[in-house]
Amino acid sequence: MKKTSTSLASARGPVDHEVRNQIIAAATEHFSRYGYEKTTVSDLAKVIGFSKAYIYKFFESKQAVGEVICGNCLGEIEAEVRAAVDQADRPPEKLRRLFKAIVESSMRLFFQDRKLYEIAISAATERWQVTLAHEERIQAMLRDILQEGRQSGDFERKTPLDETMMAIYLVMRPYLNPLILQHSFDYAEEAPAQLSSLVLRSLSP
Amino acid sequence: MKKTSTSLASARGPVDHEVRNQIIAAATEHFSRYGYEKTTVSDLAKVIGFSKAYIYKFFESKQAVGEVICGNCLGEIEAEVRAAVDQADRPPEKLRRLFKAIVESSMRLFFQDRKLYEIAISAATERWQVTLAHEERIQAMLRDILQEGRQSGDFERKTPLDETMMAIYLVMRPYLNPLILQHSFDYAEEAPAQLSSLVLRSLSP
Repeated sequence: MKKTSTSLASARGPVDHEVRNQIIAAATEHFSRYGYEKTTVSDLAKVIGFSKAYIYKFFESKQAVGEVICGNCLGEIEAEVRAAVDQADRPPEKLRRLFKAIVESSMRLFFQDRKLYEIAISAATERWQVTLAHEERIQAMLRDILQEGRQSGDFERKTPLDETMMAIYLVMRPYLNPLILQHSFDYAEEAPAQLSSLVLRSLSP
Repeated sequence: MKKTSTSLASARGPVDHEVRNQIIAAATEHFSRYGYEKTTVSDLAKVIGFSKAYIYKFFESKQAVGEVICGNCLGEIEAEVRAAVDQADRPPEKLRRLFKAIVESSMRLFFQDRKLYEIAISAATERWQVTLAHEERIQAMLRDILQEGRQSGDFERKTPLDETMMAIYLVMRPYLNPLILQHSFDYAEEAPAQLSSLVLRSLSP
């Protein structure tokens, strides 16, 4: 079994990787113009000049294409958030920056391109694997900051770490989840600072 | 001017009040069967056996009817929340009950009747006056609990009261707002306890 999958992987070498990228690039362009929901795999095939069957050799469904595009967007958000966190020295400031960067990156990426945002809506509604993985990575970043703050003496240590992490995650969730974010615009400017302050008060040793 | 409005008010005496109630009762029944969005004022007129013009003497639009029905639902939630809060002695427990009761009442009222829930969605989307007033009354309850806790020494007093109140309100908002609540079911069971604990840690003197 291992051998088969290895030989398959090598058959799908750099050329196949290029074809996949070509499909993703064309799909990103097409989705951002006509929307994810309205586009079919036939539409994509026509635009790229491939047969539908050929596209299905690389992606098993339109959703599989959407997942890659959505994963790219979420990856960008994570990179921006990580960069913002890394700029701070102390855990309290890291936590503030985490919250602020999540809201800013999500707002920008999702709303500079209303059509691509449709993919994020589908992803969140149908709970695609990429969004679950994104949530987990944000939770991991949060856990790291909390652990560092407990070690440095900035944060209290009585509450179990995972309880603290999950409660703070719930506070941030309305600004992370694209379905909820669209109903939180009125608060998106002020909320990160107000909620970070509340969270930091809750963490005081 | 004052005189005119007074005489108008007395012309709209107990009989008119009864007609209004009759329209509201019939509309509640009709909306809960066929939905708010799909129903027109003509439909309501037909069901009640009044002319459309006669209904317009009492309500200037379908939304005006919807606002009264929505206001009734929100009033029920507020009464339940107030009763739950009043059962507790100490401010920290009041705060826990406030959060728990808001989530439970909202879930029950909105989801035992999917069709009436449509009105709440319209109300929240279009920011009807009744929902803004509801938000303000919940904020007032929260402020009262915080004030009491500051006086009793249960809560810290350094942070400005309105800042504390607004931040806690933002924590509760995803479970208050029907547009967001529908995306928070997965967390609705656990969130009130987890978030109340976090909020109470943030309030410790």
